[in-house]
Order: sequence, then C-alpha cells, then structure tokens
Amino acid sequence: MTNTYSIGIDIGGTNTDIGLVSADGHCVARNNLPTAKYYDADLYVADICRKIREMMEEEHVATIDGVGIAAPMGNYYTGCIDNATNLNFRGTTDLNALIHKYLDVPVTVSNDANAAAYGELVYGGAKGMKNFIMFTLGTGVGSGIVIDGKLLHGKTGNAGELGHAIVDPNGRQCGCGRKGCLETYASATGIRATALKVLAEHPEYDGPLAQMTREELTSKHVGDAANAGDSLALMIFERTGQWLGLAMANAVAFSSPEAIFLMGGPVKAGEVLLRPVRESFEKNLCFVFKGSVEIRVSELPGNEAAILGAAALTKNK
Amino acid sequence: MTNTYSIGIDIGGTNTDIGLVSADGHCVARNNLPTAKYYDADLYVADICRKIREMMEEEHVATIDGVGIAAPMGNYYTGCIDNATNLNFRGTTDLNALIHKYLDVPVTVSNDANAAAYGELVYGGAKGMKNFIMFTLGTGVGSGIVIDGKLLHGKTGNAGELGHAIVDPNGRQCGCGRKGCLETYASATGIRATALKVLAEHPEYDGPLAQMTREELTSKHVGDAANAGDSLALMIFERTGQWLGLAMANAVAFSSPEAIFLMGGPVKAGEVLLRPVRESFEKNLCFVFKGSVEIRVSELPGNEAAILGAAALTKNK
Repeated sequence: MTNTYSIGIDIGGTNTDIGLVSADGHCVARNNLPTAKYYDADLYVADICRKIREMMEEEHVATIDGVGIAAPMGNYYTGCIDNATNLNFRGTTDLNALIHKYLDVPVTVSNDANAAAYGELVYGGAKGMKNFIMFTLGTGVGSGIVIDGKLLHGKTGNAGELGHAIVDPNGRQCGCGRKGCLETYASATGIRATALKVLAEHPEYDGPLAQMTREELTSKHVGDAANAGDSLALMIFERTGQWLGLAMANAVAFSSPEAIFLMGGPVKAGEVLLRPVRESFEKNLCFVFKGSVEIRVSELPGNEAAILGAAALTKNK
Repeated sequence: MTNTYSIGIDIGGTNTDIGLVSADGHCVARNNLPTAKYYDADLYVADICRKIREMMEEEHVATIDGVGIAAPMGNYYTGCIDNATNLNFRGTTDLNALIHKYLDVPVTVSNDANAAAYGELVYGGAKGMKNFIMFTLGTGVGSGIVIDGKLLHGKTGNAGELGHAIVDPNGRQCGCGRKGCLETYASATGIRATALKVLAEHPEYDGPLAQMTREELTSKHVGDAANAGDSLALMIFERTGQWLGLAMANAVAFSSPEAIFLMGGPVKAGEVLLRPVRESFEKNLCFVFKGSVEIRVSELPGNEAAILGAAALTKNK
C-alpha cells in the first residue's frame, strides 16, 4: 500500500515548525525547534531530521512521500536558501543536500508565501481555481501567484515578490535598500510605522493606542483598537488599505486573477482592515477588470498554511 | 498537402492592416482599409473578408489555416471587441461571428500587445523563451506576458494591461479615469505631455523643440532632438525612463521573466531612451532579480508585429 503522509516544514527566523501531514491535508503531528539558536546549518538539519523520525515513530508512520520546506528566500529550482537576512546561516544553505544526508526522500524547497498559496490551492479556499494571488502580511509582505493552476516560479525561482513592488517611488525606506515597497506599508511592521506617524500627527489623541509606550505598540494593538471603534486606529487601517488595495489592483492588471487571498496577523483584524482594502482596490482597479476579482481571506489556519503548502508541493513536484 | 498560410489582421483606430502570412512568418501580401470610415461593423467585416479573398486569389493561395485578429480590447476568450474607445463600433462587436458569415475558417481575437508578444515568441527575439514581457509604446501603452511559453490571458482574457498599472497614485489623469497609469508617462502621448511640462519649466530654452508650435510637437520630435544631443529632449527621456524602468522592475517582481522586450514608435529613438530606462530599471529592481533580466528591443518590424502575432495565434490556438 502506498504511503500518503509527507512532511511540511515552515522555517522562520525564530522558530522552525514541522508537521506530519496526511493526504487530505491534516497536520496529524507537530513539532518545532528554535531556528535562532542554530549557527551551523548541518547541525540544524540533523536536528530537524531527528525530530521527523521521532514524529513518524510516535504516529506509526513507516515512510513518507517527501519533505517540503517553506523558508525565507527558499528557491524551488535550487533547493537552497540564499542569503536570508533573518537567519544565522550566511550565504547559500543547500537544504536539499543537507536533508538527503539523513533522509532518502524527495525534498522540495519554496518560499513561505509560495507554499501558503499552494496550500490554499490544494487544501483551502482556492481549490479548483486556475488563477489567483496570495498576499501574506507578516513581519514582511510575501506573495504567491498561481497561473493556470500552477505556482509561478519564473526564471529565477523568485517570482511573486509583490511585497517588493514599489507603490510610492518617494516612499518609506525598505529593508531591501529601495524606497516605497508595498512591504513598508502593508506588513505588521509597516502598520506599526503608520501608527507611529498618525499618533505623531495627532498629539491631542488619548485613546487606547496612547496608553502604551511607542516601543510596545504593535499592529495587533491597532487591530484591537480599530475593532473597539477607535477612530485613530481606523485611520491607520484606512491608510494601510489605500496602499494594499493599490498594489492588489496593479497585480490584477498583470495576471487578471479570479481571486486575491489575504493571510497573516494583520488580516485577523477583519473588516476594519478589509473594508478600506476593498475600497482602495475598487478605486484603483482598471475598468476592464471590474467585478472579475474576489477578495478573500485565506481558509487555512495561519500557523499551518506554510506547512500544509510545503507538504503539498513535495507531493506534486 | 496541408495549407500553411494564415491571415493576420491589425485593427487600429485609423487603419486596419491585413497580412497574408506564410508558415515561416513572412507577410507575403499586405492590404488595408480605413477603420475610421466605418460605422457599421458588419459592412466593415464584409470588406475585410472581400480583401482577404482578393489577396488569396492574387497570391494563388486556395485555403488558409485561420484568421487572427489583433484589436484594441480584443478578447481571446469571447472573440469580441468590447467598448474600444477609439473605434466607431459601440458596445460589443462579435468579430468571431461576423467573420464566420463570410469565411469558414478558425478565428482568433486578441489585443494588439498580446499579439505582438506572441509574434516575438514565434518569429522574433523571444524564440525559445519561457517567460518574458512585451511593452508596446504607442498612443497608449500595451503589454503582453508570456508565462511557461504561453500567452497569459487570465480570468477575463485581459491579463497584461500594464499600461494601466499605477506608477504614481497622485500622478497624471489617464483616459481610463484613474490617475498615474504608466501609459500617461511612457506612451507617445505621455512623452509629449512630459515635453510640454519640461518646456514650460524652461522658458529660456531655444533649441529645436522650441522651433515648432506646442500643437505640432510629438514624441518623434523629442527623439530626433535627443539624438541630435539636445539637452532638454534628453531630460524628457530621462523622466520617461524613470517611470518606465520603475514599471518594468515592478513587473519583474511579479513574474521573474528572463527578458523584457520594448516596441513601438518611441523605442525607435534608441539609446537616448533606452539608457535612462535601463538605469531606472536597475535602480528599482529588487536585489533578488539583479542580473536575471535582459532588456531587449523587439526584433519584429513594428508595422508587422501584430499581424504576424495574430496569424501565429490562430495557427496555435
């Protein structure tokens, strides 16, 4: 009988989450290790593979179809991570080769947003769709693009970097060295920056966002305050929505997708963010695309989307 | 013996060009009719089909593989033109049905930039490429996108409208109703608008562009003056290049193509335009794509690109 389990791994700068995923897209077991504590990639991968074996033994799974890895700067073509700025492993880390030292199964590497988009396609709200775009809002902004039912990789393997599409050439400084990338406005970090700007513009404000130090303030606080009706928090999301809606409309002019999915921490704020996003999207959408694009929230659990997608990618490579 | 000729038609607001195209991509005969003089689509298509028959008789071609049509707002899925603002036929014109009243061959409809991109893929500089983007600079700016060796149509059939990607949310008014679309800067019309702006900023200027009325001035004059070393004309192309290079860099963040092709009247100015385009492109390109994208000029004759592409599309539908 063929085995139908695979492993999905979500590598973040702080934590690495490992999931044992069944054919129908359920994480039957989870484990994790602290990425930031490793400075040696070989030791790190050895520990990942040890944890995988432990999970398989505990769940009585004898073999797996493959290991799928979602990682910052993970490259689908090379199986490597290249110069990820938030990992301690410098230069190029050949995950494909390192995993194969310990496990003799197919390995697929992708970036986290691509994996999330693929997870949405196989197990989430994009089932059966041919063309859609996923934006993941987190510390940065990632995107995964599906064209004709397939994940778009492009020449370099890095297609779908819409967090680094420039929405304002004279805008905020981005970590990538350029100015005005979408990520500087629509990420959790960008929302925090907008919050600090709006707070500075309104010294008279004494609502909930004024009851904490500037250092404590996060996009989560903005979401909570907006949902409690705080007008300043709503204004912060209004501005966030203007930029994100514009970037989404520009993406539609490229590929004319049937849907755009949003996922990530800031999206959990719900309608207080989604309403201004939709308004800006409609305003900035070229007339030929009016009414053709659904804006949806990801249907995958946020903490499992990359794991499920990475696992699905290794099954379908 | 199978027939290997097909018809390519390029519908413009002023003229309609018809070409009889051989299998190896040569226009063996050309004809045309004045689009603007027709107010009845049926009469217009009847005349097109009459001209096609004349061309076939003159060239002793008994049958054709199909008719490919490149038209503003031409839709690949429906075979119709929808509300093209520069044609006299209002509403929806069902080219597919109309042609079939007179000719019993497959009909393929596409927009002009998509046809040009496909022509480049089959007969031009993009032969063998899997991923590239074509920008056509004319009265407006069009684009055609090839992903995995196939023309991108998207859900609506209107994918690849990068002339209407917004590069400056507070920018110039566009004919589409929005502000700051690429087309308002990088089309021949946009270059003329930039020229008028730069001229107004420099009342002391008395070079070649000051030797004509504002009404006479075209992007062609700017190109000629720039190639003669006129500093004001070079400044106009510098600004044009900044916007076009930015839009190109943003497009790369979407699909990571191996090349971007440029075509159209303004591109004929050559290096005086291409140099600032390349500089802006490099400056605005996200570091993960550095060195991965060639910027090329179309290798097809400008007046035949859409004809050749439309003819190729009907062969390969």
